[in-house]
Amino acid sequence: MSNYSSYQIMMRKIADIQYASAVLNWDQESYMPPKGATFRAQQLSTLAGIGHELATSKELGELLNKLSEDTSLSEKEKRNISQSLKSFNDNKKYSTEFVQLLSKTISETFQAWQKAKADNNFALYAPHLEKLVKLKREECKLLGDFVHPYDALLNQYEPGSKTADLEVLFTDVREQLVAFVKKIAEKPQNEDAFMYLYYDKQQQWDFGLDLLKQMGYDFESGRQDESSHPFTTNFSPEDVRVTTRINVNDINEMIWSCIHEGGHALYEQGLPSEEYGLPSSEYVSLGIHESQSRLWENNVGRSLLYWKANYPKLKNAFPENLKSVSVEDFYKAMNIVKPSLIRTSADELTYHFHVLIRFEIEKALIEGLLEVNELPAYWNQKYKEYLGIEVPNDASGVLQDIHWSHGSFGYFPTYSLGSFYAAQFFVQAKIEINGLEAEIEKGNMKPLLDWLREKVHRHGKYYSAEELCIAISGEKLNFKYFMDYATKKYSKLYDL
Amino acid sequence: MSNYSSYQIMMRKIADIQYASAVLNWDQESYMPPKGATFRAQQLSTLAGIGHELATSKELGELLNKLSEDTSLSEKEKRNISQSLKSFNDNKKYSTEFVQLLSKTISETFQAWQKAKADNNFALYAPHLEKLVKLKREECKLLGDFVHPYDALLNQYEPGSKTADLEVLFTDVREQLVAFVKKIAEKPQNEDAFMYLYYDKQQQWDFGLDLLKQMGYDFESGRQDESSHPFTTNFSPEDVRVTTRINVNDINEMIWSCIHEGGHALYEQGLPSEEYGLPSSEYVSLGIHESQSRLWENNVGRSLLYWKANYPKLKNAFPENLKSVSVEDFYKAMNIVKPSLIRTSADELTYHFHVLIRFEIEKALIEGLLEVNELPAYWNQKYKEYLGIEVPNDASGVLQDIHWSHGSFGYFPTYSLGSFYAAQFFVQAKIEINGLEAEIEKGNMKPLLDWLREKVHRHGKYYSAEELCIAISGEKLNFKYFMDYATKKYSKLYDL
Repeated sequence: MSNYSSYQIMMRKIADIQYASAVLNWDQESYMPPKGATFRAQQLSTLAGIGHELATSKELGELLNKLSEDTSLSEKEKRNISQSLKSFNDNKKYSTEFVQLLSKTISETFQAWQKAKADNNFALYAPHLEKLVKLKREECKLLGDFVHPYDALLNQYEPGSKTADLEVLFTDVREQLVAFVKKIAEKPQNEDAFMYLYYDKQQQWDFGLDLLKQMGYDFESGRQDESSHPFTTNFSPEDVRVTTRINVNDINEMIWSCIHEGGHALYEQGLPSEEYGLPSSEYVSLGIHESQSRLWENNVGRSLLYWKANYPKLKNAFPENLKSVSVEDFYKAMNIVKPSLIRTSADELTYHFHVLIRFEIEKALIEGLLEVNELPAYWNQKYKEYLGIEVPNDASGVLQDIHWSHGSFGYFPTYSLGSFYAAQFFVQAKIEINGLEAEIEKGNMKPLLDWLREKVHRHGKYYSAEELCIAISGEKLNFKYFMDYATKKYSKLYDL
Repeated sequence: MSNYSSYQIMMRKIADIQYASAVLNWDQESYMPPKGATFRAQQLSTLAGIGHELATSKELGELLNKLSEDTSLSEKEKRNISQSLKSFNDNKKYSTEFVQLLSKTISETFQAWQKAKADNNFALYAPHLEKLVKLKREECKLLGDFVHPYDALLNQYEPGSKTADLEVLFTDVREQLVAFVKKIAEKPQNEDAFMYLYYDKQQQWDFGLDLLKQMGYDFESGRQDESSHPFTTNFSPEDVRVTTRINVNDINEMIWSCIHEGGHALYEQGLPSEEYGLPSSEYVSLGIHESQSRLWENNVGRSLLYWKANYPKLKNAFPENLKSVSVEDFYKAMNIVKPSLIRTSADELTYHFHVLIRFEIEKALIEGLLEVNELPAYWNQKYKEYLGIEVPNDASGVLQDIHWSHGSFGYFPTYSLGSFYAAQFFVQAKIEINGLEAEIEKGNMKPLLDWLREKVHRHGKYYSAEELCIAISGEKLNFKYFMDYATKKYSKLYDL
């Protein structure tokens, strides 16, 4: 057997363990009964330990070192090896004990967060989160060798990204977006009360499934379930699942979670399954992942053309609620810009203030300038400062998102990166795809999906995010694409 | 750390892997999209391999050998060690390659069985099953040292059981039950057409949940889902799940699967969670497991007293269907004895002919006297011989059950053993529990559950099946208890 084949086998085994953990996590978040939590945490910790042992084995290290000098490999194989070697060296910085402790702490913190959010009681969560933040600070030290300690965490989600670069980007966001949102605030607000009438759950569910089908989501390789925080997960490129959240008094939650998670899922379903376990079957970065969900959600889903195709179906499902609402009214309602409490239901523009706040808080937490017990007050102050709103309680404030309970610090910035990549990619899609807008208006999403498959999905992790962005659009990430898109769209919507 | 503590830690880790596999299996049978099958098979195979490596590690072997000579251990600890040492030695007979091949073949055979059953096409299943039967024959050789090769498989489900003993038992079944069923067949049949009216799915579902609650099933440590073949599974003693099957044109399927799986689940929920991973937290044998489901399903659930408590609720849920049906009519209808095609919906008596047929077929398959391609014809001939019925197609014939696709040969006999143990235990329960029948009639199942917890559940695997049976009833398994129960009940029902 060739060294490369041995490498493939080892990587597949590691992937098997990681995907098994993903199944246990998915189950934990969708179906597991409450008392199952303790043993589940232990089981996940055991799997994490085994996965880590395999990912840092002497055998794998030797093989990777040998292969990294093998000049007979193809370009793709070489990239796989160099990326796997980098992961191997990163993984070696962790002890198995640390990995297991982290996994167990995460499961416990997640359980505590669920209770804390339900009971609006930050104190239930705080001691667990404190433990977790300590571990993450320790993790930054273990990983070492970064200009800023937070860089170490950023790199787990967005390889190559830097705190310093994000500071520049978020300065643009702050300056340009704040000014623009202020101009909007001076204009009369559009009507959206009809979004909050009673919308039957089953009808919503069926409509969401239709949207997913139309996008090209393959239900033979996936399924949709409900969860309190919508997410996409995959257990192979042929088992990619989404969850949605349905609120019978707000049609928005289902619509945007279906399209958003659908976008993520199309990316995963488009990754090459024959490369299972290797970097070439993996997504580039979370920023690029988010570019896929945001492109569908915002650039496509929040456009008038998209609803010209889909609004008649929605109106048919809910004739009473929407009888006097035109597609233009519906389009205006879904694009209301207005500072709000909850990130996941924020509009396209103020959304980035939520991310900005997380970025500042996480940086301070990791730097040790902020402690967990100070979080609620600090959070509320930032929301006052950037969004001009009072946070009425922690459940809709600092407790709103699942991420920190998962130990995901450094994750939030990728949400903004994703939106900005999406705007840049979509400009290019419109140039390259003949009659794209007319196809969307007809409800034919195939040309766009084919383009994304060709430009993004099929490459796996072959390109870095920056390389991919250049390959697609001819330049590095540039905030101006997003700002141009926003200015054009919202100037028209608000008659600026 | 003491040797015993090290042993506990190792065993917990092995259990974590086994339970992780159980989650992946549960998902495979309940929620996994069809294309997920291939990678899932690979993931399960990897987990099986890792579990096997841990369960046969030199370290564990040395520890068990040391501990087996440690006289300072308690009686319970000693039993744990001797049972774990036996499992260790059994596991050592398998290579990791064999375990992984078996796991992968099982997943593939299961997928093939699903398709074959849906399409009524045995040929889709046959090549996979052939491969699996070959592996099982090989397994018998690996395990070696049994009087009959089939004993090796029987022992995986019912430790200590022998083909020779089962032959004696099934001779009793054949002689006594066949004669009794013949007498019944000469009598006029009871009415049960109302069982097959349209019964709304959601109403059935809710009624089933009520039955489970009444039995004492803890929904904080479990949940119910749907599947094509109802089963109970657990991922710890605090996460014990059941599935049910609902047929809107047959109220029987939901009722009997809920009570049956509920009985299994109560056993698992009653096992000591503090002993997680050790034999003392495990069930005795599948025969004893089945005694718990059968006791609830037949001795309790098919009694008139049980329905005196529950029929008013059912009638309330389906007033139209049941308006002219008295509880006595309902009781008679649920106890109709009539040879039929499908094991899981067979009555209490002819049920054992289905098991008898499986026993004879499995024995012949393992002996090599029968091949997979001969199965459908052989099956149909046996059904003619023992049940006097023609099998119209393989889907309701040889393809009806999931077990063989799981590689579970030697499993079926435990179904009959379970019914016979149940009859024997229930006689004792009635002697020991003050006013048991009156409590059941009131819908109070707690005294019975408490008795089962005390007599069976809390002991884990401390006793063997035979020891447990003697501890409870003062004697070994005796078919006469079942035959007495059957004679008394059905003589009255059929006026013999």
